[in-house]
Amino acid sequence: MTELIHLLAGIVGDRHVLAPHDDAAEPFLSEARGDYRSAPECVVLPGTTDEVSRILRICAEAGMSVVPQGGNTGLCGGAVAAQGEVLLSLKRMNRIREVDALNGTLVAEAGCILADIQSAARSVQRLFPVSLGAEGSCMIGGNLATNAGGINVLRYGNTRQQVLGLEVVLGDGRVWDGLNPLYKNNTGYDLKQLFIGSEGTLGIITAASLRLYPQPLQSQSILIGFSNLADCLNLLSLARRDSGDQLSSFELIPAIAMDAAVAHIPGCGNPLQDSHPWYILCQFATSSSVIPLEQMAQSFLESAYESNWLSDAVITTSENQERALWNIREGIVAAQRNLGRSVSHDVSVPVSRVPELITRVIDALTVHAPDVRPYPFGHIGDGNVHMNLLQPKDMDENEFAASKPALRSLVYDIVLELGGSFSAEHGVGLLKRELMDLHKSGIELSMMRAIRTALDPRGLLNPGKVV
Amino acid sequence: MTELIHLLAGIVGDRHVLAPHDDAAEPFLSEARGDYRSAPECVVLPGTTDEVSRILRICAEAGMSVVPQGGNTGLCGGAVAAQGEVLLSLKRMNRIREVDALNGTLVAEAGCILADIQSAARSVQRLFPVSLGAEGSCMIGGNLATNAGGINVLRYGNTRQQVLGLEVVLGDGRVWDGLNPLYKNNTGYDLKQLFIGSEGTLGIITAASLRLYPQPLQSQSILIGFSNLADCLNLLSLARRDSGDQLSSFELIPAIAMDAAVAHIPGCGNPLQDSHPWYILCQFATSSSVIPLEQMAQSFLESAYESNWLSDAVITTSENQERALWNIREGIVAAQRNLGRSVSHDVSVPVSRVPELITRVIDALTVHAPDVRPYPFGHIGDGNVHMNLLQPKDMDENEFAASKPALRSLVYDIVLELGGSFSAEHGVGLLKRELMDLHKSGIELSMMRAIRTALDPRGLLNPGKVV
Repeated sequence: MTELIHLLAGIVGDRHVLAPHDDAAEPFLSEARGDYRSAPECVVLPGTTDEVSRILRICAEAGMSVVPQGGNTGLCGGAVAAQGEVLLSLKRMNRIREVDALNGTLVAEAGCILADIQSAARSVQRLFPVSLGAEGSCMIGGNLATNAGGINVLRYGNTRQQVLGLEVVLGDGRVWDGLNPLYKNNTGYDLKQLFIGSEGTLGIITAASLRLYPQPLQSQSILIGFSNLADCLNLLSLARRDSGDQLSSFELIPAIAMDAAVAHIPGCGNPLQDSHPWYILCQFATSSSVIPLEQMAQSFLESAYESNWLSDAVITTSENQERALWNIREGIVAAQRNLGRSVSHDVSVPVSRVPELITRVIDALTVHAPDVRPYPFGHIGDGNVHMNLLQPKDMDENEFAASKPALRSLVYDIVLELGGSFSAEHGVGLLKRELMDLHKSGIELSMMRAIRTALDPRGLLNPGKVV
Repeated sequence: MTELIHLLAGIVGDRHVLAPHDDAAEPFLSEARGDYRSAPECVVLPGTTDEVSRILRICAEAGMSVVPQGGNTGLCGGAVAAQGEVLLSLKRMNRIREVDALNGTLVAEAGCILADIQSAARSVQRLFPVSLGAEGSCMIGGNLATNAGGINVLRYGNTRQQVLGLEVVLGDGRVWDGLNPLYKNNTGYDLKQLFIGSEGTLGIITAASLRLYPQPLQSQSILIGFSNLADCLNLLSLARRDSGDQLSSFELIPAIAMDAAVAHIPGCGNPLQDSHPWYILCQFATSSSVIPLEQMAQSFLESAYESNWLSDAVITTSENQERALWNIREGIVAAQRNLGRSVSHDVSVPVSRVPELITRVIDALTVHAPDVRPYPFGHIGDGNVHMNLLQPKDMDENEFAASKPALRSLVYDIVLELGGSFSAEHGVGLLKRELMDLHKSGIELSMMRAIRTALDPRGLLNPGKVV
């Protein structure tokens, strides 16, 4: 046992320091997609902010780097400790410290599982709107460190917009208590904004004051089949207006994904009679019992139909029907695996350029890689497309792997020409470090580096990540 | 003419550099409340981002400090150049560069007047929601630099939440083009957040990509009279839920302010039959034509009445009636001047503690300054109270002036005990610099100073302000 591990055990107790070869350490070491593997000095699991502070002070004294980790559900290698760092899991810091329904806030520790925060909000008739595929296991600390997106961004904003305050431990062990849950506070720089989305490179978030909203009492989902991709913008604009901006999701599904879900996911069926090139799945939701949601949905569809923006549509009239529609949306992610390997791109452009993005990628593939099948879906109400490209049916795995760099360039070049981003919601981590150097301006990189040096002068926090 | 002024004139042209004794310079030199006066080296008015860049490069070479200024409507001395700095007005940079209704964004230069941005949005059936008293003359650059609040924060957030991108010129003249109007972009630190609310100390904002929303097609305002201050929280919670969160404003008016508006502002009348200790003025607004807004308002009031949370209420049934109600809200600010001098506090606490804040201040005044009349009003839906205290009727001005420090401490001590902020929406500037040192933690101040040094190493931008 090294001297450092001895000191860490003195802070958190022997059983909360795990050696990398320990079986109990395994869940912390491999990333979801299997692309990265950690080889840390040890895994340490503090139970309090004070313990995090003492760990960081001791690591700083020893010149040891620290990689913070939440639920380990990230997809970009942001929580990987591959260079013998101390891997600090926030898992044990999982208390909800306070719920204030009248202020519309709760204070959660970094290790709280997202679904548990949603439940805590629900128990006081409030909504915590961050919602994404991994919500049953991802932790709020990771959601904050990566500014997680998900399906409700259109209405409520990214995770960033849900934060009123943070508690952060800096690289030297100092604790910043910025938790006061104020909606308005113009006293100097908004420091919390820096830590949100910084992927653990500026400080370790130990707790947050989060915003809650009135809990929806009724909802209505709609599946629309349509042919002309550009009309998705008209449909979005109309849906926002006609719902009084109570549109919580607006998701694009291409025919290939609908077919895959229907073919491969038990219980998934297309409720529309015919097949359509494109589908929109959207949801109206409201906390008001007075608003006639079904009438609102019908009036929206009538206007859209009159304008020739849709071919067919169905409105849910029961909770079961609504669940069945959203099973399709979840199913298209799982179903994709049945179609072979893929290369995925979590990209965004201005909402108004989503059709152009998708069309240009499809056209470019037709020329340069005609057998690669595009599988573009996602949160187009936010301009965020998961531009996944599938391995050609007859191509072998190695050949497809070799073609990936060219496919990535094909997509990113178009995205950047349209003023878009090469990482809409998943962050940078290790996976997109090179893209930062390639595509960010020199002035932007130099500001980021200057800020990182200002807050973590010795560069001990999550080294090698982001910038 | 100094060498520097000669060089500046070479960039912007002779007529866009004003000497401080020049009549044309006058509007830039005194602050709205008359508490501060500038004595700059000169006033320079660039017309383009490139000119701002060249000005800053030349000033940096000369070691000359620069104070940026928008509409000069600030209340804390943030745009005052009292130490011979170059006063840089963004006034001539007043173009709206782009409107993209389908993306829900527009790109405005820093010198655009807020009301002009609102109009540009309206012309494409969209809403730019930042709205405040000075909107006819304040400029968006100043709104951004101070993260302005206003009456729609409850529903849409502060100015910060309306920003998707920024163009900023740094102290050394480098230009950061971060204007891409993306709703999702997780590629490194969110730099724009630092500049928003930094009051020109980190860089000069020259343009911004701003968010638009569906334009409300109908609205309904309600004036409520009630006795028990604590019930304002119940009313707020109910109004948010019953309106489907389509509550755009929720303002508190005390009896003293209602009476002052009725007595001193032409056209202001209290539409309720009796006088009440407290009033709430709130507004429901929606872009949907299907939502039965009046029915929604009535059902809200019935529930509130059954719970004994209100004594009397009136719903507007015409646009004229609605305007008359909001004239009261605007009138209480103007009417206050008829009651003598005052000391004002723009403070916030968690929404759930607003009644406690007001009650405790009133109680403390009863003990320590029984003749001072409290005049608390404002955006309590955001926890933001304008805690104005009026000069006792028989006290002379000098005596009142002498009592101000004690009155300020009385208010701020209670605010801070309740976890609140000493500047909710007006910023820090010169006025609240000392409060920063007194009330912010050492770690918070040290982070702010480190960031300032990282981005403006020579400290030439708006020196002496904020931190």
